[in-house]
Amino acid sequence: MALIVHKYGGTSMGSTERIRNVAKRVAKWARAGHQMVVVPSAMSGETNRLLGLAKELSPEKSTPELLRELDMIASTGEQVSVGLLAIALQAEGMASVSYAGWQVPIKTDTGYTKARIASIDDARVRADLAEGKVVIITGFQGIDPEGNITTLGRGGSDTSAVAVAAAMKADECLIYTDVDGVYTTDPRIVPEARRLKTISFEEMLEMASLGSKVLQIRSVEFAGKYRVPLRVLSSFTPWDIDIDEEARSGTLITFEEDVNMEQALVSGIAFSRDEAKVSLHGVPDRPGIAYQILGPVADANIDIDVIIQNVAHDGKTDFSFTVNRGDYGRTLDLLKTQVQGEVGAAEVVGDPKICKVSIIGIGMRSHVGIASKMFRTLSEEGINIQMISTSEIKTSVVIDEKYMELAVRALHKAFDLEQAGS
Amino acid sequence: MALIVHKYGGTSMGSTERIRNVAKRVAKWARAGHQMVVVPSAMSGETNRLLGLAKELSPEKSTPELLRELDMIASTGEQVSVGLLAIALQAEGMASVSYAGWQVPIKTDTGYTKARIASIDDARVRADLAEGKVVIITGFQGIDPEGNITTLGRGGSDTSAVAVAAAMKADECLIYTDVDGVYTTDPRIVPEARRLKTISFEEMLEMASLGSKVLQIRSVEFAGKYRVPLRVLSSFTPWDIDIDEEARSGTLITFEEDVNMEQALVSGIAFSRDEAKVSLHGVPDRPGIAYQILGPVADANIDIDVIIQNVAHDGKTDFSFTVNRGDYGRTLDLLKTQVQGEVGAAEVVGDPKICKVSIIGIGMRSHVGIASKMFRTLSEEGINIQMISTSEIKTSVVIDEKYMELAVRALHKAFDLEQAGS
Repeated sequence: MALIVHKYGGTSMGSTERIRNVAKRVAKWARAGHQMVVVPSAMSGETNRLLGLAKELSPEKSTPELLRELDMIASTGEQVSVGLLAIALQAEGMASVSYAGWQVPIKTDTGYTKARIASIDDARVRADLAEGKVVIITGFQGIDPEGNITTLGRGGSDTSAVAVAAAMKADECLIYTDVDGVYTTDPRIVPEARRLKTISFEEMLEMASLGSKVLQIRSVEFAGKYRVPLRVLSSFTPWDIDIDEEARSGTLITFEEDVNMEQALVSGIAFSRDEAKVSLHGVPDRPGIAYQILGPVADANIDIDVIIQNVAHDGKTDFSFTVNRGDYGRTLDLLKTQVQGEVGAAEVVGDPKICKVSIIGIGMRSHVGIASKMFRTLSEEGINIQMISTSEIKTSVVIDEKYMELAVRALHKAFDLEQAGS
Repeated sequence: MALIVHKYGGTSMGSTERIRNVAKRVAKWARAGHQMVVVPSAMSGETNRLLGLAKELSPEKSTPELLRELDMIASTGEQVSVGLLAIALQAEGMASVSYAGWQVPIKTDTGYTKARIASIDDARVRADLAEGKVVIITGFQGIDPEGNITTLGRGGSDTSAVAVAAAMKADECLIYTDVDGVYTTDPRIVPEARRLKTISFEEMLEMASLGSKVLQIRSVEFAGKYRVPLRVLSSFTPWDIDIDEEARSGTLITFEEDVNMEQALVSGIAFSRDEAKVSLHGVPDRPGIAYQILGPVADANIDIDVIIQNVAHDGKTDFSFTVNRGDYGRTLDLLKTQVQGEVGAAEVVGDPKICKVSIIGIGMRSHVGIASKMFRTLSEEGINIQMISTSEIKTSVVIDEKYMELAVRALHKAFDLEQAGS
């Protein structure tokens, strides 16, 4: 008997018929003798519908008070889902009970609309499991120290599921989604993309953070921190397929780098067009300048990704970074009003029409020349590189958005990922 | 400066445009210097939509576990409403904050889908009011001693509003609805029906309990118990009408019987077709029989209304009572399986096609002959009376459902209610 956490996305919960299928699948696992905790998302479209209503009424200025109400509203989508799934399980003859995040409780900080989980109390859930109940917990949300409802941001249900799995030391956390695993890159862009049977946690972290939208990045961080075995698999297989077959399907995110892996140098190509680039030109080159620029940005709760500071000449330097495209306007405003004068920059400019393309692979640790092969490939396609950023196991470039597909296809081919498989 | 509670029904909250109007109206009251607490219902149609989804998935048998999940689901409608209204108020420049029932907390028993309020902690709300915030609280719901979400049953938001007003000793509780007050009877059935400017609490209690659907009965009970001044008024007046005019509109439910009231003998005619009649024939006439019959019914959480036990002859009696029509099948089943054999009744029969018509008036206390005038009026119309039930200030009859409109019109005319006004 194992303790298993299932997470189902909004598409899998998209109608009562689909919810019934989820219930049958969960019941199959429970009947196989497993203790089951399930974390479903809101029915697809529901969160957007709710936030659409809110947007029609919202004041122009975003305030913590407004964000608090958005969380109050958006969190209801998952609450409906857990109730419906609990009922569907009861109709299957399974004892089940649902909890909202605050009931577990899943404690978070007060970062409305993008809160972070602080702790999970699993006593109530364990008691229910001991009584043979399937426990269904809302994804995407928790409760802050003052008793306010918070949400974890888009994709937060993945994080909820992994956090619950971590807190309960679950044997495996299965993320059911509308794709059947993690691919070398997005098959919609490269039809030859191949599904990976396993991927290392670190590679997955890069894949997730770089825009491969299979899993929310924080869920992968959590999985890594607490070593939660995580599997991404399809919710569109028939619910009654053999459970052992199902348990081996999809992509396993593993912590053992070399076991069972015929590791290619590069495991996958990730990309994102959710970013925008901003630059301050003619910044005086003095100590503390990066903090003076990025401090106010971070204070405004704007996530910063790639950061580039060029070598100074004539005592001046250029400073560039990327942010989520949704934060672009706000970032430009903030730089012009609060930062430019303060640091004495000559000019603030930006470009929202960029994209980031990255190659990822554990193999890069021990092999040189991979980045230069990437640059050569892009050069051969006539693609200009605007920014470069590297880590141990990935190399990212920022390029003009219009070249994104071309770059991804060229790199996928250059690194022999069609044959990679695994 | 007064402390005022506003309650808005689902129709008033039915669209973002209407929510904006509610916000403007509340802001007008707040700007006039009042401390404002608002209790809105779910957007019209939302609770039905949610429970419709649940019904598609539900097992046949109703259990406490199922009812718990229904409350989990249904309570989200109001949670969305409070968030949206808080946002709309913020857009009007008013500081505002919303709370779900469990956050206040509004504590209830564990009677899922028809819970009763046990206590309300107003500390958090008072603190917000002191800071100048408009506080918006979900109607219809609370939290039980184990931390489960409960709902108060249909119309429960009225009760929530009055309970909050009582707990906070509000100066007045204004129930905004889609009618402009309490009428002598339903104007859809009797076009000559007149709006009452005032009605006594006891009369209102009878009107509410007998099917005049302006206010949920428990809200009137609460208002009576805690002497909360309660006003029913229209949410369809322009939001910017003069506040003093608005404060005098609608119908005031009063505790002073004779002040400012030109009291008629009968104040109104109430009716209900939400009931069904069940009878046990040939019940042995022995002590404790009523309890033996009704105990199991009450244990099944079925509300009983009119109860009739005829005089016995040959040691046998007939025992009849009415229940909500929605409980009819369940009640018949229960009587046949758990009660009939136990008490030795010859037969269990029922009729869901009945209605109850009542005349109500404080004046009945001091005037005789009112009931007999009612019976004569019905007799002249050829309407057979199946059951009769009386209290100090009302007389009810159960008749065939098909005569309901005829009976209401005839009684409204017989008691001169067209001219009553006040």
